[in-house]
Amino acid sequence: MTRCPCEEEVLAKIRPTPEEQAYVRAIGQRLIEAVERSGMAKAMMVGSVARDTFVRGDRDLDIFMLFDPALSREELQEQGLSLAHRIAEEFGATWREKYAEHPYVNATIDSLDIDLVPCYAVPSATEIKSAVDRTPFHTRYILAHIDGYTDDVLLAKQFTKAGGVYGSDHMTEGFSGYLCEVLTIYYGGFRPLLLAAARWRPGEVIDIEEHGAKRFEDPLVVIDPVDPERNVAAALSTSRMFEFVELARGYLAEPSVAFFCRPPSPPLTREVFSRLLAARGTHLFSITFATPDYTPDTVVPQLRKSAGSIRELLERSGFPVNRIDVCMGEERCMLLFELMAGTVPAMRRHIGPPVSSKGNAGKFLEKYVREEVFAGPYVEDGRYVVEIARPFTRAADLLRSNALFDVALGKHVRGSMQQGWTVRAGAECWDEEFAGFLSGFLERSSPLARIWRTTRR
Amino acid sequence: MTRCPCEEEVLAKIRPTPEEQAYVRAIGQRLIEAVERSGMAKAMMVGSVARDTFVRGDRDLDIFMLFDPALSREELQEQGLSLAHRIAEEFGATWREKYAEHPYVNATIDSLDIDLVPCYAVPSATEIKSAVDRTPFHTRYILAHIDGYTDDVLLAKQFTKAGGVYGSDHMTEGFSGYLCEVLTIYYGGFRPLLLAAARWRPGEVIDIEEHGAKRFEDPLVVIDPVDPERNVAAALSTSRMFEFVELARGYLAEPSVAFFCRPPSPPLTREVFSRLLAARGTHLFSITFATPDYTPDTVVPQLRKSAGSIRELLERSGFPVNRIDVCMGEERCMLLFELMAGTVPAMRRHIGPPVSSKGNAGKFLEKYVREEVFAGPYVEDGRYVVEIARPFTRAADLLRSNALFDVALGKHVRGSMQQGWTVRAGAECWDEEFAGFLSGFLERSSPLARIWRTTRR
Repeated sequence: MTRCPCEEEVLAKIRPTPEEQAYVRAIGQRLIEAVERSGMAKAMMVGSVARDTFVRGDRDLDIFMLFDPALSREELQEQGLSLAHRIAEEFGATWREKYAEHPYVNATIDSLDIDLVPCYAVPSATEIKSAVDRTPFHTRYILAHIDGYTDDVLLAKQFTKAGGVYGSDHMTEGFSGYLCEVLTIYYGGFRPLLLAAARWRPGEVIDIEEHGAKRFEDPLVVIDPVDPERNVAAALSTSRMFEFVELARGYLAEPSVAFFCRPPSPPLTREVFSRLLAARGTHLFSITFATPDYTPDTVVPQLRKSAGSIRELLERSGFPVNRIDVCMGEERCMLLFELMAGTVPAMRRHIGPPVSSKGNAGKFLEKYVREEVFAGPYVEDGRYVVEIARPFTRAADLLRSNALFDVALGKHVRGSMQQGWTVRAGAECWDEEFAGFLSGFLERSSPLARIWRTTRR
Repeated sequence: MTRCPCEEEVLAKIRPTPEEQAYVRAIGQRLIEAVERSGMAKAMMVGSVARDTFVRGDRDLDIFMLFDPALSREELQEQGLSLAHRIAEEFGATWREKYAEHPYVNATIDSLDIDLVPCYAVPSATEIKSAVDRTPFHTRYILAHIDGYTDDVLLAKQFTKAGGVYGSDHMTEGFSGYLCEVLTIYYGGFRPLLLAAARWRPGEVIDIEEHGAKRFEDPLVVIDPVDPERNVAAALSTSRMFEFVELARGYLAEPSVAFFCRPPSPPLTREVFSRLLAARGTHLFSITFATPDYTPDTVVPQLRKSAGSIRELLERSGFPVNRIDVCMGEERCMLLFELMAGTVPAMRRHIGPPVSSKGNAGKFLEKYVREEVFAGPYVEDGRYVVEIARPFTRAADLLRSNALFDVALGKHVRGSMQQGWTVRAGAECWDEEFAGFLSGFLERSSPLARIWRTTRR
C-alpha cells in the first residue's frame, strides 16, 4: 500500500533520527551490561525505544531488571532497588525512587529520562507475579511481529495523540502505546487499522492469537497476545473508542496532516468564559479542595466516583444536571457540575406505594395525614403521591452542606474534603489554575468536530 | 349480617319514603299505560326508580318506549319523538328534545324530571342496535336479583357519592349506579363488597354470570351479566378505583357516618390561593378559552387529551411538569399546568445517533459542525450529543405561541382555541369562575385522607 503524501510528510517529522536511535540504544546497551555484570539479574530494554516505535524527541528509556522468581517480594524489592541505586550512581545520574505496583528508580542520564524497574523473570506471561512482569513479554511479542510496521505504528501513535485519545491513564481513558502496536500489527498497517475502526461497534472483539478466551464487558476487547486473561483495551472508554472511530472515518474521507497535529487551544479569558456561560443560561457550580497526596491513577477514579455520586444527589434533590467533569491539579482538585436549574420549588413530589399494597399503603397514608404537606396523599395511577417540602431549594446550599458526606465519595477525596471544600457558582467558578479545564468544559467538542471546524472555515 | 349503627343511621336518612315511592311509581305507571295505549310501542320504567334503589329526593324517572326492531333508525326516531311529544302534551308537561346516542324527550311533570326514551325491543342484550337498547335488560336483570339487597345498594351508592367516586361521566371516571348494583349483588351486600374491594388489585376481574368472556385492559373488569362483550366498569379510572379501595379499608377499620357525607369544602379566597401557591414555589399556568358547544362527554375527554399533549410539549421543551388538570365551565374551559420551572436555560442538550451508526453519525456531525452551537457535537457513551439553543426559554412564551397547534388537541378544543386563548401565570391564574377547581387543584387529597384529616383532628 502506498502512503498518501500527508503520511510521508508526517513521518518525516516524527520518525526518530538515526543519530537519536543510535544514541539511545547505546546508553540502553551500557545500562543492560552494567545490570548483567552485577550477576544479580538479567536486563532488557522495553517500551517504545526497544521497538523503535518512539516518536522523535519522546525517547524515555525503560530498562527492566529480571530477577529470579524464587526471590520473595521483599528480596526482589531490596535487591532491585539496591542494584538500581548502584547503577544510577555508577552513571553519575540524578535519581529518585518512585512507586507503581512496586518501587523502581527514575534516573536522568545525559538528559535522557530512564526508569530502572525490577521484575521477576517468569517463564510465561500467564505466570506473572505482578503487572510489571508482563512488560518484557509485550516487548518480545512486538519485536517478533513488528517487521515492516514500524512507520505504521508511529502514524497510529501520532494520530491518537493528536486526536486526544492516546494514553491509558484514568484521566484520558484512551489507547496505550502497546494497544496501538497490537492493533496495527493485527490489521496489517495504519490504513487497514483505520478502515477497520471505521466499522467498529461497541463490544468489538479482536483476538490476534486466537486464544478464544474469556468474555469481557468492555467496549473494545483486544485479547492480549501474551495473556488470554487480559484485555489490552481495558482502560479504553466508549467515548475515546468512538472518538477514534470518527477520526478514522474523517481521515479516510479526507486525509490531511491536520489529523496528526493537535491544534493549539488557548484557554478562554475570564471575560469570555463569563460571557459564554451567561449565553448558555445554565447554572455552573464548582467544588474545590486540596489534592490528596496520591498518584493520578489513584485520585482521578476517586474524583470521578465522587462527582458521579454528587450528581446523583443533585438529581435526587430536584436539580437536573447537564454535564459534570473533574480535574486533578497540582494543589487542588475541581469537581464541576452544570445544572439546568440552580433553584427549585419548595414543593417536591414524593411517590408512595401502590394502594393495592395494603400494609404499605396504610402506613404511608397514616404518616402523611399527620404531617404538614403541600397536598396529598392522593391517588395517581393507583399509587399514593404526596407533595412535601424539600430540604434544599438552592443547589449551592446543598453543595455546601454535609449531605455530601452521605454519598459515596472516594476515600482520599472524602479525607481531603473533610479538611474543607469551597463551592463557587456561575462565573465565580473561574480559576486561573483550572483555566484550561474550565475552557475545555464549555467548548467541549469531539476531535473530528474540532478538526473540521479548523480546516473547513 | 347485622348492620353497624352508623349504617342504620344513614339508611334512615337516604331510604326513599313509602309515600315518595308510591307517588313516583304511580306517575310512571300512568306514563307506561299512555305509551301502550298508543299501540305504537311497549313501555317500561328503568333506572333506579324502577329498582327502588334511588336515594331519597333523587327520583329522576326514566320511561323507555320499546319499538319494533324492524323499524329503520329514521322511523324509530320519527315515531319515538312524535309519541313522546304527544304524551308530554297529554300530561301538560313542559318538555324539550335532547340528544344522547339518539334523541329523546326530557319533560317535567308534577316537579318530577322525566326522560321519555325511544329504543328497540330487541330479543337479547347481545343483539342491541344502540346502547340505549341495553338499558331495559339491565333493569330486568337487577330486578330479578336485587331481592334483599336494596338497602345495601343504597349504602353503596351513598358511600361512593360521598367519596367522590360516583358517576361514570368523563369528568368523574367513577362508579355508575348499575356498577354499584352489580357489585353489591355479586358480593352479597354492602359490607362484603367493601371487604372484597379492600383486597382488589389492578386488573381485577368479576364475571358474575361466568361468561368467561373476552379480555379487557381496564383496571377493573366487571363483565356485564347481560352482555359478555361489555365491561360495566369501562369508564372507571385506576385513581377512582383505588380511592374506593382506600375508602373501603378506612371504613372497615373505623366505620363512621363521615364516609356517607361529603364534607363541604368551601373554595379558597384569592389571597389564600396566592399564599399557598407562593409557598409551593412552583410555576402555575392556566389556559382558558370559550367552551365548545358540545356535551361534557364530548368536551371533557378532548380537554384531557389537549392538556396531555400540551404537557408533553412542555416536557419536550425542557419544562418539567408536576401536575395538570382540566375544567369545563359553562362559558369557558380551563387547562391548568403546574411546572417545576417557568424558565429554563437557553442551552438544551440534543442527543444524536450512536457513532457506530456510520451514515447517521456522519450526517449529524456534518450538520452541527456548520451551525452555531453552544458545545459539541461530542461523544458521550458512544453517542453524539450537541448543545444547541432552544426556541422558548419561558413557558409562558411557549404556551402563548402557535406551537400549541402542532400537538394533538381535541377537535372542538382546537376549533375554540383558534378563536383565541388566554394564558395566565402564578397567582394571576385565579378566576372566580374556576374558584372551586383551582382550590381543589392546590388542596388535592384522596377522599380517605380528607376524611381522616376532618375526623381525627
